[in-house]
Amino acid sequence: MNNSRPIGVFDSGIGGLTVVRALMRHLPHENLIYFGDTARVPYGPKSAQVVREYALQDTDELLKHDVKFIIIACNTVSAVALDVVQKRAKVPVLGVILPGAEAAVRATKKNRLGVIGTVGTVLSNAYTNAIRQMNPDIHVFSQACPLFVPLAEEGWTSHPATELVAKEYLFPLTLEKIDTLILGCTHYPLLKDVIDSVLHKSVTLIDSGEATALSAVQLLEERGLRNQSVLKPNMQFFVSDIPHKFAEVGERFLGQKLGKIQRVSGFSA
Amino acid sequence: MNNSRPIGVFDSGIGGLTVVRALMRHLPHENLIYFGDTARVPYGPKSAQVVREYALQDTDELLKHDVKFIIIACNTVSAVALDVVQKRAKVPVLGVILPGAEAAVRATKKNRLGVIGTVGTVLSNAYTNAIRQMNPDIHVFSQACPLFVPLAEEGWTSHPATELVAKEYLFPLTLEKIDTLILGCTHYPLLKDVIDSVLHKSVTLIDSGEATALSAVQLLEERGLRNQSVLKPNMQFFVSDIPHKFAEVGERFLGQKLGKIQRVSGFSA
Repeated sequence: MNNSRPIGVFDSGIGGLTVVRALMRHLPHENLIYFGDTARVPYGPKSAQVVREYALQDTDELLKHDVKFIIIACNTVSAVALDVVQKRAKVPVLGVILPGAEAAVRATKKNRLGVIGTVGTVLSNAYTNAIRQMNPDIHVFSQACPLFVPLAEEGWTSHPATELVAKEYLFPLTLEKIDTLILGCTHYPLLKDVIDSVLHKSVTLIDSGEATALSAVQLLEERGLRNQSVLKPNMQFFVSDIPHKFAEVGERFLGQKLGKIQRVSGFSA
Repeated sequence: MNNSRPIGVFDSGIGGLTVVRALMRHLPHENLIYFGDTARVPYGPKSAQVVREYALQDTDELLKHDVKFIIIACNTVSAVALDVVQKRAKVPVLGVILPGAEAAVRATKKNRLGVIGTVGTVLSNAYTNAIRQMNPDIHVFSQACPLFVPLAEEGWTSHPATELVAKEYLFPLTLEKIDTLILGCTHYPLLKDVIDSVLHKSVTLIDSGEATALSAVQLLEERGLRNQSVLKPNMQFFVSDIPHKFAEVGERFLGQKLGKIQRVSGFSA
């Protein structure tokens, strides 16, 4: 086994770059390959059937690069297609749902958890099912927030309109007196401040991407897959389209410049 | 020539149903086939190259149904791919840009026009170029409004957040003292009231879909293509995915129930 092989990360678009950001912090010596299906983004409103088909194609794209480990940096895919991706890949696969759910279960004191995500993630009940398996006494309250993704991509992270939208979506969760909220979409960490400002101060926010990076560290250790090199790692970014404003939006998500982006063809045919 | 052959209409998703609505009003006896590429929606933020590839596949889908005439009910596609669609189809093809531009040129009194649309439509300069060809003395001011599509799909047509978003996007156009505004995206007619409320009362709104339906009537007449039957026409709706909340959102755009929706495969492979 060659441990210098890259970790493969995929997402429906650029949201997964927030997960890459966390991975770079916790695994600074791992080589990374990112694939974002920007030609068909977003997956959130789409049917589970189509998301599963797309997820398999995304997986195949990463497998071409001989990755040692795959991280599904998309809540919608993790919610509805983890099983098919695991079946297709011959390498370990980690989604963002379980790590996020585990972190939330550890954090809650009153056993009242909120989950926000895309329509696809929320309708799948993936977080609720995962949490109930860990602790059946926990009450889970879910809310789809479809406007959060376009607001984050537009960069309106502290706009009064975003605050109004957040208030509207999160009001039902405040009524349920949640003490912990899972940010169940990789775009949402960009709206952390606004989300925080409309919730009670005591509510803990759980970033599934951050939790996933920590799980990835553990999994690589357990399987003896950590890269032993301490050289500057190689980062490669592949997308199925280079949409308008891509560099600008991507930089906001990654927290630094992306460098060279390569377009992969075959995702529009 | 068999004039009972259907008119084919395609769009990136469901926005084009506002054009179908106008067509049903102005051409109540025409058979219609609609194709919405809901598996890959939205096209607005995507690169021109990918939009052109998708547009050709959408066109091929309609051509399978022996359509007599194709209407591109999507501003982004009309802006960047009208030429390739016209080349591919052996039947007349009408986009929404020219009819919308013509209606606006007729409406403006002060020769100061605004255009709002997706990033793709605005960056293409398609409206600006079309208007300047008709009348080089007209000043055109464009503004991309990426959040309008998700707001319309979420049904927040009179929400205070939508009003704040509209104010932010339209403020630069009000400074330019436009007297006419082209709604250069098929989603925007749903936000007409909010858009109207933040503009000066004297500003005329131009619905490109409505203008396109009127152009379609004229074109069918000229080419002798009008259906002579006065029977209730046949309406068929095809999509590449049946996403969450599809029936609900579609009904809002069409202004009536859609009836049977058929999913076409091959758009995710």
